[in-house]
Amino acid sequence: MTYRQDIAGCLADNCKTGVTSTELDDALRRAAPALPKLAKMQRDGSLPLLRLPARRDDIAQIKPLAAEFAKLKDVIVLGTGGSSLGGQTLVALVPPGRTRVHFMDNVDPHSFTLLFDALDPAKTGLIAISKSGGTAETLVQFFACMDWLSKRSAARTIVITEPKTSPLRALAAARKLRTLEHDPNIGGRYSVLSIVGLLPAMIAGIDVAALRRGAGAVLDATLAAKDLRDAAPAVGAAVSVALNERHGVVSTVVMPYVDRLAHFGLWFRQLWAESLGKDGKGTTPIRAVGTVDQHSQLQLYLDGPADKMFSLVMLAQAGKGSRMPARLADASLGYLAGKRMGDLIDAEQRATAQTLIRNGRPTRVFHIERLDAQSIGALLMHYMLETMIAAELWGVNAFDQPAVEQGKVLARQYLGEKGRPKAQ
Amino acid sequence: MTYRQDIAGCLADNCKTGVTSTELDDALRRAAPALPKLAKMQRDGSLPLLRLPARRDDIAQIKPLAAEFAKLKDVIVLGTGGSSLGGQTLVALVPPGRTRVHFMDNVDPHSFTLLFDALDPAKTGLIAISKSGGTAETLVQFFACMDWLSKRSAARTIVITEPKTSPLRALAAARKLRTLEHDPNIGGRYSVLSIVGLLPAMIAGIDVAALRRGAGAVLDATLAAKDLRDAAPAVGAAVSVALNERHGVVSTVVMPYVDRLAHFGLWFRQLWAESLGKDGKGTTPIRAVGTVDQHSQLQLYLDGPADKMFSLVMLAQAGKGSRMPARLADASLGYLAGKRMGDLIDAEQRATAQTLIRNGRPTRVFHIERLDAQSIGALLMHYMLETMIAAELWGVNAFDQPAVEQGKVLARQYLGEKGRPKAQ
Repeated sequence: MTYRQDIAGCLADNCKTGVTSTELDDALRRAAPALPKLAKMQRDGSLPLLRLPARRDDIAQIKPLAAEFAKLKDVIVLGTGGSSLGGQTLVALVPPGRTRVHFMDNVDPHSFTLLFDALDPAKTGLIAISKSGGTAETLVQFFACMDWLSKRSAARTIVITEPKTSPLRALAAARKLRTLEHDPNIGGRYSVLSIVGLLPAMIAGIDVAALRRGAGAVLDATLAAKDLRDAAPAVGAAVSVALNERHGVVSTVVMPYVDRLAHFGLWFRQLWAESLGKDGKGTTPIRAVGTVDQHSQLQLYLDGPADKMFSLVMLAQAGKGSRMPARLADASLGYLAGKRMGDLIDAEQRATAQTLIRNGRPTRVFHIERLDAQSIGALLMHYMLETMIAAELWGVNAFDQPAVEQGKVLARQYLGEKGRPKAQ
Repeated sequence: MTYRQDIAGCLADNCKTGVTSTELDDALRRAAPALPKLAKMQRDGSLPLLRLPARRDDIAQIKPLAAEFAKLKDVIVLGTGGSSLGGQTLVALVPPGRTRVHFMDNVDPHSFTLLFDALDPAKTGLIAISKSGGTAETLVQFFACMDWLSKRSAARTIVITEPKTSPLRALAAARKLRTLEHDPNIGGRYSVLSIVGLLPAMIAGIDVAALRRGAGAVLDATLAAKDLRDAAPAVGAAVSVALNERHGVVSTVVMPYVDRLAHFGLWFRQLWAESLGKDGKGTTPIRAVGTVDQHSQLQLYLDGPADKMFSLVMLAQAGKGSRMPARLADASLGYLAGKRMGDLIDAEQRATAQTLIRNGRPTRVFHIERLDAQSIGALLMHYMLETMIAAELWGVNAFDQPAVEQGKVLARQYLGEKGRPKAQ
């Protein structure tokens, strides 16, 4: 396997606010129905996400588009939430290459001014992603970018949206833009392994077949597990929910010790919050980054309210990076002599995990030997499955987001309030 | 004033989990002793932070250094936590200029490889900041950068550290590096208005005198307030603590609707967590960004556990940015016709605040007319004062971080464990 989950630091034997074996067994028993449900949804195709790892046809379809866009200097990806965070997660894995991919997920006029000032419209491609085709932010971004790209924009624009009538689809048709189908049964926050995440990833040079292999291995192992204790996502969900129900845990901190996984933390944050935060249930996802947040949040984590679960993502970095001098004049620095930068981050991540556990803060560790497309595919699938299984435990629907509609309606109302559009 | 705080959405009259006027009065009464204490510490100089707004001598001192570094193509700022987040907050306010400022606050070998690949050592300056002079991460970063810069590095390196014996100071002396004094009585997370934040800010072109004027106005108004209800930071602290003590609020979300304030959210997160997260007290700070997190976190915020307070930072953006066509073929888009991008973000921020309040989520709003050095100075001072006053209410020391030592000791131990350094 490309990663290893270690939950020892979440168990009462090792951590004073951890779950007991009875509590864990109970949660796993309650989680058990989730797996045959998932297997059924995979078989009958009602959850197409679970069929993505085995597919290659869609990769073949977007390959020429990715190759074409990879020749451009810049590519702007429009879209927000699930239309953006998956792509951001994947593109962050690789060094900036020939083509720079800019994810614009806000409607801040200043940010667009800076973007347009920095880019050459003649060398820029555009990808606009909105599942519904009616997301106000994406439509406004789209108009702004089409204006800026001007005449030749149609040739360098791709739209990804559902195959149903929508404002974005109508605009794409009127302008004869190339349009790819967003699977209507794959919600934005579960779309990272679909063309939504894959197209930007391929432009940036990610091996998307390896990504899917990594995801597929986790999916297969989970669905094939005879004992739920061998299904890492089920164990993760059981621990997360039991800590919430029995031990007052209200937040869940995901803290990779890898800069390249900072965006992964944001992707997880949407997945967990939107899927589970309903009916007064769920825990609040928090993205942290090690070692940086040791110097920002660790005081609170260790000595503030004991209401958090921690998931540290550790990459094997010992022996990597710049080397300190073998002899240091300052005797107090002896512990650093001859060490490499990777040795320090390695020691820090282990020390932080131990310190959290010793202070009664339940801590899970994900160990990754190599950070590549395959291991990130595995982690992404782990968390999507863990989220769906946690939804089973909390008794909520992992696939809807009913509460956000109210604000959208009000925003439209406020926009209308201002009266007729002013003359230019 | 450069900003306006509106707490109506945190009051029981408007929000069903808000504070009652009795609860607010009680918290304000308990907060009252904080202000004369702060005034005394300003007078006797024991809290030098409170004298920074009026100072200009230190600005004059660093001005030539900033001018010199502003001629370079790139400047790397080393340091972590409070040595970095203040500078990041300020530099994020201005468009990337002639000199690019890179804040390296982690010890991820891969990030340094990318950095060194992208920069020209002959055109790069270095600023290393560590208050204690003994932060392991900063020392390792420092050695890595000095190696890479090689021979000519001394001329283009500045060290900021306390005026006491320390590993960093000794290294700086041995290499004859220019060294500036970090005030020993200004902790990292309160150092944004000191040379720690100002030097990178000046290199990036920020008007630091205006920054201090903005901060000074808030400080003066707070200390001069006859009625605590006129002291915005005291009111903010009273609401925050009362919501925690009486209404089960355990997290506090700061959500600017401005991309340039994304780093401000991270700065706040350290300030609040490290100052208040102790003795089992404090609330967990969360950084969100509008509108982006409407598409990620809003479902949880509205329909998950009612355990959060929200602070939306709203910038007046109506009428700004790209304009939508006055006529849109698609009738369902009528609400967007002729509107500008800024109109949308303006409507969204107001709609989100209203929706949160209507759903019983206590919400404070900061209104900013213009985002500039002065208004950010005001916000920074507001939050530093609010944090210190909240500490008075919770009965904790706002200036220490006792819990983080344990992990540092363990990390040194783990580094030692690996035995003697391997031969190159």
